[in-house]
This record gives sequence, C-alpha cells and structure tokens, in this order.
Amino acid sequence: MNSDSNTLTLRRIFIDTQIEHIVYMRKDCPIYKAEGFESMSRVQISVNNKFLVASLNIVSNGLLDHGEAGLSESAWHILGAVEGGRIIFSHPAPVNSMQFVRAKIYGNVLSKYHFKEILHDVVLGKYSNVEISSFITACAGDHLSLEEITALTEAMVESGQLLKWKSNMVVDKHCVGGLPGNRTTPLVVAIVAEAGLVIPKTSSRAITSPAGTADTMETLTQVDLDLEQITRVVERENGCFVWGGSVKLSPADDILIRIERALDIDSDGQMIASVLSKKSAAGSTHVIIDIPVGKTAKVRTQENAEKLKYYFKVVGSALHMNVKAIITDGSQPVGRGIGPALEALDILSVLRNESTAPQDLKNRAILLAGEIFELSNTSKPGEGQELASEILSSGRAYAKFLSICKAQGAIKEPQLAKLKVDVKAIRGGTILEINNRKLAKLAKLAGAPKAKSAGILLHCPLGKKVQENDVLYTIYAEETGELNYALDYLKVQTDIILIA
Amino acid sequence: MNSDSNTLTLRRIFIDTQIEHIVYMRKDCPIYKAEGFESMSRVQISVNNKFLVASLNIVSNGLLDHGEAGLSESAWHILGAVEGGRIIFSHPAPVNSMQFVRAKIYGNVLSKYHFKEILHDVVLGKYSNVEISSFITACAGDHLSLEEITALTEAMVESGQLLKWKSNMVVDKHCVGGLPGNRTTPLVVAIVAEAGLVIPKTSSRAITSPAGTADTMETLTQVDLDLEQITRVVERENGCFVWGGSVKLSPADDILIRIERALDIDSDGQMIASVLSKKSAAGSTHVIIDIPVGKTAKVRTQENAEKLKYYFKVVGSALHMNVKAIITDGSQPVGRGIGPALEALDILSVLRNESTAPQDLKNRAILLAGEIFELSNTSKPGEGQELASEILSSGRAYAKFLSICKAQGAIKEPQLAKLKVDVKAIRGGTILEINNRKLAKLAKLAGAPKAKSAGILLHCPLGKKVQENDVLYTIYAEETGELNYALDYLKVQTDIILIA
Repeated sequence: MNSDSNTLTLRRIFIDTQIEHIVYMRKDCPIYKAEGFESMSRVQISVNNKFLVASLNIVSNGLLDHGEAGLSESAWHILGAVEGGRIIFSHPAPVNSMQFVRAKIYGNVLSKYHFKEILHDVVLGKYSNVEISSFITACAGDHLSLEEITALTEAMVESGQLLKWKSNMVVDKHCVGGLPGNRTTPLVVAIVAEAGLVIPKTSSRAITSPAGTADTMETLTQVDLDLEQITRVVERENGCFVWGGSVKLSPADDILIRIERALDIDSDGQMIASVLSKKSAAGSTHVIIDIPVGKTAKVRTQENAEKLKYYFKVVGSALHMNVKAIITDGSQPVGRGIGPALEALDILSVLRNESTAPQDLKNRAILLAGEIFELSNTSKPGEGQELASEILSSGRAYAKFLSICKAQGAIKEPQLAKLKVDVKAIRGGTILEINNRKLAKLAKLAGAPKAKSAGILLHCPLGKKVQENDVLYTIYAEETGELNYALDYLKVQTDIILIA
Repeated sequence: MNSDSNTLTLRRIFIDTQIEHIVYMRKDCPIYKAEGFESMSRVQISVNNKFLVASLNIVSNGLLDHGEAGLSESAWHILGAVEGGRIIFSHPAPVNSMQFVRAKIYGNVLSKYHFKEILHDVVLGKYSNVEISSFITACAGDHLSLEEITALTEAMVESGQLLKWKSNMVVDKHCVGGLPGNRTTPLVVAIVAEAGLVIPKTSSRAITSPAGTADTMETLTQVDLDLEQITRVVERENGCFVWGGSVKLSPADDILIRIERALDIDSDGQMIASVLSKKSAAGSTHVIIDIPVGKTAKVRTQENAEKLKYYFKVVGSALHMNVKAIITDGSQPVGRGIGPALEALDILSVLRNESTAPQDLKNRAILLAGEIFELSNTSKPGEGQELASEILSSGRAYAKFLSICKAQGAIKEPQLAKLKVDVKAIRGGTILEINNRKLAKLAKLAGAPKAKSAGILLHCPLGKKVQENDVLYTIYAEETGELNYALDYLKVQTDIILIA
C-alpha cells in the first residue's frame, strides 16, 4: 500500500466507545473509497508508529473536515494521538489466532500455546468485540477440560505484569461474588497483616454490582496507588487494600470479562482462569476462595460449588499455588449496608467492636482470616478462627487498618447520603426470603457506586420477626432524580423481601 | 421509569455504523448518570412509539448540545427520526431468547420454537452484534443436528415475507460460491424461462466478492425492482434477474450473515439454512444447487461436498422442496471476466453464440439448466442438457434474455474501464494453478464491484501453454488510485498464477 496517499489528519471528536476501538472517516474520503473499506470494516491504523486495529464508522456530515479522521477516546489515548497529528490507514493482516478459536468451535483441544497466541492478539486490540464473543462462547458451556482451564489461566498470567515480593509466602482471598454487602476483604486484610502475613490485596471497582471493594475503600482512604506506592505500603504494613487497575495484572482477562458480562455468560472455566490468573500474577502463594451458595447468589447449587472447589484446587496447584475454596451461605446480603459508604460504615463498626456491629460480617471475616491462618500454617488446624477473633476483639485489627489507610495516604470518614426513604413492612410476619439481585439493582438505581453515599441499609435479616409498618430497609440517595428511579422500580417489585 | 425525565431532543449526526445501532449521549447528560448507563450499555430508545435497542456511545464535546441525543444512521432511518424530534430512554428488558442461546452453548438441542424466538428478537434489533456472534458460534462447528438445521431453516423462512406464484412449479438455482466469474445465473434464467418454466430469480450484490449477480446484471438492465414490478415481469416472461434486497426474504439471515463473514465462520448448518430459507421464502419447488469443489474454492474437499449434497436434499425435502445439489469443478475461475461489466460481456458473448465465447461458462450454464429440466420432468433423464443446448444455440435464449431485460426496464451495453495493465508471464510453461481468492482480491483492489467496469480479464485457463511475456491477464480500473492499489498488491504476490 502506498502510505502517503493513506494518511489523514487527526481531529479529536470525544466519542467514548469503551473498549471497542472506532475510527471515523468521511463518506467522501478517497482512502475509504480506494481501499474498499465498508462501514464497520476492520482497518489498521498507525499513529506515531503505534499500531491498532479499529472498526470503521462512516461520517457523512460536519463532524470531520476533508482530509480528517477521528478516533474513539480509547484509541486516541492508546495511540497517544494529538490534535492535527497524522494517521495512516491500511488493511489489517488477518488475525491468525482466530484459526485456533475456529478449531475450538470444532471441538479441538487447545494448548497453552494456542491460548497465548489468542490472548496476545486480544491484548493488542486485534480482536473485535464480535471475535472476542466468539472465543468466549467457544470456551463456555463446559467446553474446556481441566487441562485447558489450566492452560488458559497460565496464558492469562503471562499476558501481563507479574508482581514479586520479598516474602516467600504471600496470601490472598477472593469471593466469587454475587452477594451484596459481602465486604470482608478490608477486615481480613487488617487481621491477617496484623498477624505478620503478607497480603498485598488489589481489588476492582464495581462493574455490575452496587460496590466493589475499591469503591468502598475509597470512602475510607486513597486507593489509586501505583506499583511503587503499593510496594512501599506492603513493605511497611504487610498489607494493603488498593485499586488493582493501575497494576495491569492479567489484562487479557479485563478485556474478556466485559464481553462475558455483556453476554451474561460466566462459565466455570473462565471464572477460574479469571480469578487464579490475577492471584498468580499478583505473586500469591496461599489463596482462600469464598464461594457463597444461594438461590439468588452467583453460584446456586451445592453441586456446582463442589465442582468449582475441586477445579480451583487443581488449577491452583498447577500454577504452584495452595488454593482452598470454602463454601458459604449465600442466601442473604452480608452486613447491613449495600453501597460504598454504607458498607464502609459496617466495616468500621466491626473493627471498633461496636455492640451494634453486624455479626454476620464479623463472623465471615473471622472465618476467612482463620482459613488463611490454617492454610499458611500460621495456626494449627482448627485454631485459625480463634487467632483471628482475638486480633479483631483486641482492637489490634482496627489499629492495623488505620495504619494501612495512613500508609496509603489518607484516613477518611464515610458520609451518609442526605436523602433517604424508609421502606416498611406491609404486614407482620417472619422474613422468609431476600432477593439479592433485586436489592442490588435498587441500590444501583439509587446511585451506587458512582454516588458513594447512596445505597441500601437493611434492617431485617432472614428469620427476623417484623410488625406491620416496621422499617425493612432504608434507601439512601444523593440526588432526588436517583431516589425517584429507585422508588419507581420499587412500585413494580413485590418480591424483594418475602414475609411469611 | 418516569418517561418525562427520560426524554431528549434528536439531532442528526450522520454517523454510519452499519447494522449495529448506536445512540449518542453527552457525558454530562442527567439521564446517562441517573440511569446508571455506561458507555456501550444496551439502552432501549423510543421515537414516535417505535422501539429499538441500541448501544450507548458517550460524547464529551461539541457534537451534541445540552438536552440532545444522536443516533447512528441505521437507527435514525428505522425509527423514522426527524431533526428536533423527541427520543425516550429506558432500560431494555432482558432479551429472553438469549437463554436459548445459552442452552445451545451447553449442548442442548433447540427446537423450531427456540430458533423462532431467537430470530424474532434478532430481526427486531434486540440482539447486539456480540450476542449474534455468540449465537452463530454456538451453532457452528457441527453443533447443529440435521433436525436443528431444518428447524433453523423453517424459522428463518418465517422471519420474513413469503412469495406466492400462480404456477405450481417454481424452479431456482444457487451456487454456494467461492468461484470468481461463475456467473451462470443470467444464462440459466434465460434458457429455463424460454422453455416455459417459472424462475423468479432474486440475487444479491457482492458482499466479499468482486461481483454479485445483481452487480453484473446492473450493467445490462435495471435490477432495483419492487415486488409488484417483479411479479409483473415474471408473469409476462416466466423469469427475471433482479436484486433481492427490496423483497425481504429471510431477513434474519441477512443480519446473521454479516457477523458470520466478520468471523469468517461459515458452517454447513448455517449455509444450508441461509440458502434454503431464501429459496423456500421465494416460493421455489425445484432447486438445483451448484457446489464447486477446489483447493481455493469455498468447499475444498469432495467429502465435504457430498455431505452438503445430502444435507441440502434432506432439509429441502422437509421444507417441501425438491432439491438436488451437483458437485462441479472449482479449480479455476469460470469464463474470462472477473468484475460486473467483464462478467456481463462473457454472458453476452455466450448468448450471442460468438466463436470466442468462453466455453466453460457456456457448458456450466447448459449443465445447470439441463439439471433443472430433468429435476422438473421437463426433460427425460439424460436429455436435459440437449434441450438447454438447443435453446442456447438457436438464439432463443438470447431473445428471451433481451425480452426479460426490456421487461425489467432497460437494455444496457456494458462498458470496459478506460485504464488497463497487462500482466505477463515471466517465463514460458504450462498454467498449473490459479489462486481464485487472490485473483478475486486483485479485482476488488482494482475497484470491483463498486467500479462496475473494473476487474480482471483472464487469458490463461489451466493447462494452457504460454511463452515468456504472453499476457496472463489484464487488470481494468476506472481510477489511477485503484489501479495502483492492485499493482502494489501484485508486487508482493508471486503465486496468483503458477506456471510449471
């Protein structure tokens, strides 16, 4: 291709298309016509000798002048584009690793080499969302053997950065999710770090839930640390609770997971690879996985949980990690708060040993910390929870928590939102069921996690007896509009909390 | 949801994103924030009480004023949007039929009901491209049984319009493709219609090839006819060769096929459903399928061709059609021209019985027309080709051809492009191999099919002896830029034509 004739001038047009890279070209652009591109064609673009494959959108008026091209914000940033810079167009080479995706579709077994090639191209942005969807679908539905899950996990680990720590033993915990308010991580980190174990915990922000651990911790301290800062905190305090986004562990997984969520496909193989690749890349040696099981949790049957438990152990072992999954009750939210600040308040009340502290959250944190102590031989079998409980009730966990927050750069006090509405029982009786998914949705409509102090405060755990007009839960919101969204949703939902 | 607060004013922004519907919203738009939408969220939009599900792109500067939203061109047209009109936003209901896609991923068998539900939602635009990709992948790789292919085909038929004809017998032919220049359709239509059979042939424009039958016929007559016009032509002439785009047969297939091409996945099941759904919807009763087999054709092995042949027959029979597939030589292009006008010139020279007419094209047309005669009992077994040959050599086929062209509204003479370059043999020898795919690509770079008179004129069929500097083929182009693209490509290709 003649590169001179394939050059246009960049104009920033500020369109955010998330991870799908889009390049915008005029309908009457000679390159568009000459190259035989169509709208949505995959085209290779190059700016400052950085290359990217993008989908083409055709613009027929106003947005661009003659000789100009635009980029979606993601592509603009990755290429380091500047206003008025040059952009060169060409036909992209075929994505060779798509042949392995096709092989998988036809039932062939993929090796680590195949997965590495695929993920390498995914991370380079060579796969369109449509191609990523095909890869995910081909691997879903129990189409991956245990060997393939291991190979995929190893390939994910190698797609990004690897963290190294001075300690030979690095512990971690992870919850497969689906349970609102299950914010044990900050408590476990404080307890475990206080006991002298190294636990460099990186967490994500919420993608589909009302709060991620990073969102919650952001109401208590600073979480946007770079790798150097994280290393300094961990060397001083043994532990941290930071946002993982700046560390780029298993970046292929970050891309795949967005399409998995769009498809609402979360196969066992992909979940295991996702979780364990991050743990391995983070340098973990001993990992506890929390699998809550319940009708409206992510994992819904004991049988599925048992299978996951076995898979986690085997794949972890292949990656030289000692992984133990524990199956917990997933029938109702944990603690009382759902939403960043509301969950943070629960955490503080547990750490401060307040009499009103939610006992279920406290007990879960003790259970998980205890399991870590036993897995790492810090405690003898059966004695882990005792140690965890002692560290928490003595106030040492709280002191450690404050110390880590300070090391991360700030100690903040979470605030409650100024708008609130109590939702009351329309009849007396016993709380029989709580719909986790609908409660989470309600908290999101009220503004969580973007509105940090918005969410739900739950007053009625399962089994509690209530009278008519007792407050079941309180909705908190920062804006009237958001509060109204939540209330509108409530009007058409009758089964969020079931009273028998 | 409160619909008043979810309303914005439409502004046309002229961005063409092909079949993926996109809605554009400002970053600071209250709806965006309040609804908890993210960039690339699926949102339901409503204009004039028409509903559509679109993906959200977030705009942070200039393109839209406060209170405004934009639409991709496809969505703008489907919704009948007008500048300054109102657009209402809400969360889309979950796409229920995606559960059947997930069931298929997990190996369950789908029924006609399931496929109908899926295709219904696809045609309504409820599926994102990512979801369509997942459906296609789940069905690919021989994951569909013969019963499922039949169910999918029936569901595709029912996704669109059905044509009815006065005749009880309606014949058709189809080539599964992959062979440049294989433009037998206009010849077969002329021969068969002249024999008194009804053959209402609708054809597509090229999607990835240098010419579709509709592109070629457009250089000879008018092809953009509506259903009423088509009916009138067929009633008068027994046959037609029109573009099928205005007739909306099997619209679900039109949507799926674009994603299949993007993925380069063309599974047997989907190909059979695609072809036979269009034939059934068009009211065909007797159908001949041409399956060219060759190293660089679409079907590459005799074994795969035999399997396809069997499947076509069985699925056709389930849809009450008499379908016969014939396996033909796919080792080299057919005729001499590759590109709309160049192929049209080949057709004319066969119809006019010129001594220089390409015999391979002529013989293929006679073969296919003969098969139609025998399948429809117009000829006795073994006598079909004789009848076809007689109709062609007598000039009656040419007269019929002109008569149909006239009925369609025009008789045009195709023109050759003004720019041309001869490509010569660098050594003497025998033509051993011709790469269909690369030759097709060369024709496309030269401008075909958009530039109607551009393409390739081939002078060296397989087995021909050539001297050094003999012309192997001529590249035709309408623009210097396009000619240069073709020549640039040629510089890096050494194996388009192999001389032994």
